[in-house]
Amino acid sequence: MIAAMAPTASERAAAPPAAEGAGRRGKGERTRAAILERAVDLASVEGLEGLTIGRLAADLRMSKSGLFAHFGSKQELQVATVQAAGRRFARAVLEPAAAAPEGAPRLRALAEAYLARLDLYAGGCFWGAVAAEHDDRPGPVRDAIVAAIDSWLGELERQARIAGAADPGRVAFELYAVMQAANSRDRLGDGERALQHARAAVERLLADLEG
Amino acid sequence: MIAAMAPTASERAAAPPAAEGAGRRGKGERTRAAILERAVDLASVEGLEGLTIGRLAADLRMSKSGLFAHFGSKQELQVATVQAAGRRFARAVLEPAAAAPEGAPRLRALAEAYLARLDLYAGGCFWGAVAAEHDDRPGPVRDAIVAAIDSWLGELERQARIAGAADPGRVAFELYAVMQAANSRDRLGDGERALQHARAAVERLLADLEG
Repeated sequence: MIAAMAPTASERAAAPPAAEGAGRRGKGERTRAAILERAVDLASVEGLEGLTIGRLAADLRMSKSGLFAHFGSKQELQVATVQAAGRRFARAVLEPAAAAPEGAPRLRALAEAYLARLDLYAGGCFWGAVAAEHDDRPGPVRDAIVAAIDSWLGELERQARIAGAADPGRVAFELYAVMQAANSRDRLGDGERALQHARAAVERLLADLEG
Repeated sequence: MIAAMAPTASERAAAPPAAEGAGRRGKGERTRAAILERAVDLASVEGLEGLTIGRLAADLRMSKSGLFAHFGSKQELQVATVQAAGRRFARAVLEPAAAAPEGAPRLRALAEAYLARLDLYAGGCFWGAVAAEHDDRPGPVRDAIVAAIDSWLGELERQARIAGAADPGRVAFELYAVMQAANSRDRLGDGERALQHARAAVERLLADLEG
């Protein structure tokens, strides 16, 4: 379980209170999850700064007060959106790869799952977009972004260590770099060539580990 | 000379007409260049979408009509800003490295110059920020961004070919990837470790070429 997948205090606090009954809470949580899926895609296109409660309510044809019941502020919505993007990443990349043995086979499965899903977010790499937007804005939104990316790099490093890498941090950094570059090149119209280069780079890095 | 460094038709067209006299044109060009330097830093923080003529005029304490004399529209301002960012990159990275012989020494000099100047734009990597913002917005702004990034990758590939790389495109992609990743990690608080990893990766890639 990586940090980005665990519900945080603010996620738990934002769920409707238990006094409303389990049935209603279940529906509230499903509505909240559906709102956040849409918010993740919108933010991947327009950034987290464009993600206001008014903008999202208009997009979902919900009332602003209905959205306020789920998210008390723009900042809370932004943090919840970052966490929902992390859960989507976990479902699409970490969970499928978990079937592979830890170490080099897990790294290969993670890279394959990542490179197969460059379409994971509607507007291209969610993480590249929101990191570029928030890297110079200290606060809970930036903290949530940093935690999610660090968690991804940390998992790569952990698997590289299990694979016996002499410098697991270096292997993790290079795997992270080629996956990120494939993603950004894909969005700029050079996806096929970039995917080939990225897969070759991953294989070379893993061959070094396995050799 | 890479494409990003050459003045384009729209840049020439935006300069005041020659009939105004050489003295005034010189001043107009200096003013325009100073405006664009500020626009590049603003866009690296807030993105190109936040870069309106009104916003930039307020920041520079100029009149909007004064700015309109230099840039007829927000889009023209955005394209000119992308081109100015390309010239800044050329001055800081391409020109210093040009002293090194072409091939592997040039690639090493380019990577060293790039990694020494992760502070080149006020708000972190200008290219990462604007590419994430515009990758899904077809038009002249996206075209200018793609041309500049392709030009950088093209120069890396050209030098890798001169260095005798079996697959110059792959070497260029990997160099591009580790430099970009060092840049984004630097902005998220892990700069020192990322720089070490990036320099090690560059050395390994070049050792493969030179070995």
